[in-house]
Amino acid sequence: MQIFEKCGNTDIEGVDSTNACYGGTAALFNCVNWVESSSWDGRYGLVVCTDSAVYAEGPARPTGGAAAIVMLIGPDAPIAFESKYRGSHMAHAYDFYKPNLASEYPVVDGKLSQTCYLMALDACYKHYCAKYEKFEGKQFSISDADYIVFHSPYNKLVQKSFARLVFDDFTRGASSIDEAAKEKFAPFSSLSGDESYQSRDLEKVAQQVAKPLYDSKVQPTTLIPKQVGNMYTASIYAAFVSLLHNKNSELAGKRIIMFSYGSGLTATMFSLKLQEGQYPFSLSNIASVMSVDEKLKSRIEVAPEKFVETLKLMEHRYGGKDFVTSKDTSCLAPGTYYLTEVDSMYRRFYSQKAADGAPAANGSIINGH
Amino acid sequence: MQIFEKCGNTDIEGVDSTNACYGGTAALFNCVNWVESSSWDGRYGLVVCTDSAVYAEGPARPTGGAAAIVMLIGPDAPIAFESKYRGSHMAHAYDFYKPNLASEYPVVDGKLSQTCYLMALDACYKHYCAKYEKFEGKQFSISDADYIVFHSPYNKLVQKSFARLVFDDFTRGASSIDEAAKEKFAPFSSLSGDESYQSRDLEKVAQQVAKPLYDSKVQPTTLIPKQVGNMYTASIYAAFVSLLHNKNSELAGKRIIMFSYGSGLTATMFSLKLQEGQYPFSLSNIASVMSVDEKLKSRIEVAPEKFVETLKLMEHRYGGKDFVTSKDTSCLAPGTYYLTEVDSMYRRFYSQKAADGAPAANGSIINGH
Repeated sequence: MQIFEKCGNTDIEGVDSTNACYGGTAALFNCVNWVESSSWDGRYGLVVCTDSAVYAEGPARPTGGAAAIVMLIGPDAPIAFESKYRGSHMAHAYDFYKPNLASEYPVVDGKLSQTCYLMALDACYKHYCAKYEKFEGKQFSISDADYIVFHSPYNKLVQKSFARLVFDDFTRGASSIDEAAKEKFAPFSSLSGDESYQSRDLEKVAQQVAKPLYDSKVQPTTLIPKQVGNMYTASIYAAFVSLLHNKNSELAGKRIIMFSYGSGLTATMFSLKLQEGQYPFSLSNIASVMSVDEKLKSRIEVAPEKFVETLKLMEHRYGGKDFVTSKDTSCLAPGTYYLTEVDSMYRRFYSQKAADGAPAANGSIINGH
Repeated sequence: MQIFEKCGNTDIEGVDSTNACYGGTAALFNCVNWVESSSWDGRYGLVVCTDSAVYAEGPARPTGGAAAIVMLIGPDAPIAFESKYRGSHMAHAYDFYKPNLASEYPVVDGKLSQTCYLMALDACYKHYCAKYEKFEGKQFSISDADYIVFHSPYNKLVQKSFARLVFDDFTRGASSIDEAAKEKFAPFSSLSGDESYQSRDLEKVAQQVAKPLYDSKVQPTTLIPKQVGNMYTASIYAAFVSLLHNKNSELAGKRIIMFSYGSGLTATMFSLKLQEGQYPFSLSNIASVMSVDEKLKSRIEVAPEKFVETLKLMEHRYGGKDFVTSKDTSCLAPGTYYLTEVDSMYRRFYSQKAADGAPAANGSIINGH
C-alpha cells in the first residue's frame, strides 16, 4: 500500500482473494461486482494476479513459470462481461495443494488434477449452456464462441480440454457437430463419464475432430503460456493477453469464452463480449501498450543449472528472516520493485530500480516505523 | 464444499478473503456487491467469519478467544447497507502479523497496534463524514449514529475508540459537543495528531466526556466480546450480534455505525439502517434464533491448566500430519463438525456429532480419493 500512501490515497477497499489458480478470477469478479454495486464511488478498480509457479525437482519442475497481470476495471469497458452466462463448479479435492508450510512447493497428483480439471470443465460448460439457453431461448454450442481461453498450466491440457468441449457438444446433440464428427464419436457414445476421462482412444479421436476448430478458436490464445510456462493465477489472463496481442481490433463484436480453474477445486466458465472502444481504452491501444513481443524478446536466457541454483536459494529463504538480497539488479527491467532485505522481525524492505535502468540511489521504501 | 456437493449444488462462487481481522468484512462487502451486481442469479449468499485467536504464553494470551459467525445475504433485508457512506483506510504496518509459518501465534506490537487502530479510526471517520456530508448536504456527528459497533479485541480499546470519536467531533466543531465538553477538551486542542494518541490526560478526559454516550450507544454491543474474548474476523459481528440480542425490535429505524479493523492494516467505517422486516427475517426472530443467552450459558468452564495443555497440543499439531484426534466429543454441541484425522498426505477428515448429541455412527465425511 506504500505506493498509494505516498499519494495520500488510503481510502481503498479490497483484500487478497485466495484459491489456488482461481484467486485472480475471484478478485476480478469481486472488482467487477463492486463497480456494478451501489457502493461504487466512480473510481477504477485494479485486479492483480501474480504467482511464481515453482516445483520440487522432478517432472513438473520444467512446467513452472512466473508472471504478474494487472487489469484495470471500470464502466463502459471495451472488454465486457456477459454476466448472466456463468457456470461454476466447486468440489473437494486434493489434486494440487500446499500442505507443508515450510515449503513453497506443492503436493501434486498430476493424473487426478487433470481429471478434476476436465470434470470441472464439463460441469461448468453444462451450467454455462443451461444459463445461456434459459436467457436466449436457444441451444448453445462451441459455434457460438469465437475464441475459448483456458487456464493453461501446459498446452497439452488446453488441447485436451477443447477436444473435451467438442465431445460434450456431441453428447448434447449440439448443432456444432457435423455428420462426419458424429460418426467418429459414435463408438464412444455409451462410455460412462469416468470411462470417457480415461479413454486414450476417445482423447485421440476428439483431438483429431477438434483440430480445425482448435486452430481458429484456441491456438491464438496459446502464445504466452507456451513461452512462459505455468503462471497459476495469471495463466488464463496471460492466455487472454495472447489473444489480444494476436487479434486486437479484429476482436470487436466477438464473444470469448473463459475457463478458469483452481485446484482444490473451484472453476468458472464465463464469457466476454468485446468492442473496439475509445482510445486510450481501445483494443488496438491495449494490445500496443502491452508490447508482448518486446517483453518476450527481453527475457534473459540462463542455463538450467543457474535456474536450479536460484530455486535452492529460494528454498533456503522461504519463510526466512535476517537476510539481504543480491545487489546485482542487472537482470531487472527498469522501474522494477525488488526485495532488498528481510530483517530480524521478518519485516520486508523493497527498492525500485530507476526508470532509466540505473539502480535507485535513494528510492528505498522503508517498511518500518 | 462437501455439504453442498451432497446436495448436488456445486455451481457456487466466492473464495477466501484474507486480511487479518478485516477478512470477514471484505467477504461481506464482496457478497453484498454480488447481490447488487448483474451477475447475481437470485440465490442467497453466505458469509462465514471464523477464527481461533490464540497467543503465545504472555500477557496477550488471556485475551484470546474463538468464534464463527455466519451471515445470510439477500435482497430486501431488515439489515441494509447505507452503501454510499463508507470510509476506508489502508496503510502499511507491522502491528500484528504471522511471519513464522511454523507457528499459529502472531507477532504483536501491542502499543503500535493500538495507535494504528486509533489512526485508522480517525481516517475512516474523516472519510465517512466527508461522504455523508457530500450526499446529505449537512454535517455528520456521532449524534447521527444510534449505535456504534467496533472491532473488539478487548473492551478497553472499544472505550478508548468511542472516546476518540467524541474528541474527533470536538476537533471538527461538530454539534454533538456541548459547551461543558468543549471546556474540558480545550486544553488539548493544540495537540498534534501524534501527541493526541499518546496523551493519557486526553484519554482520561475523553472517556469521562464520552461516558453517557458510551453507555447508550456502545455498551449494548459489548456482551459477547467481553464474554468470549478476541475472535479476529468474527469480533465486530459478535459485537453486532450482542446489539441485536439486547435491542432486537427496538433497532427498527436506527442507524448503526460499524468500524472494522484488520492489522497490516485495512479498516472501514460503514453504516447499516435497520427495519423490523418480515418473519422469518425479522429482527425479533433473528435475535430469537441466535439464542445468545443459551449459547453463552452452555459453555463449559475448564481450569487454566487445561487450556494451556490444549494449546500445547495445538502447537504440536499445527501444520502437522499423520495423527488422529481424541474420540471424546462430549464437549461438542450437537451437530458440530469436527476433525477426526490428518493422514500422511496431510489430507483432513471430518465427522459430525449427531443432532441428538450422540457421536455419529456413520457420519464420517471422506476427504480422500
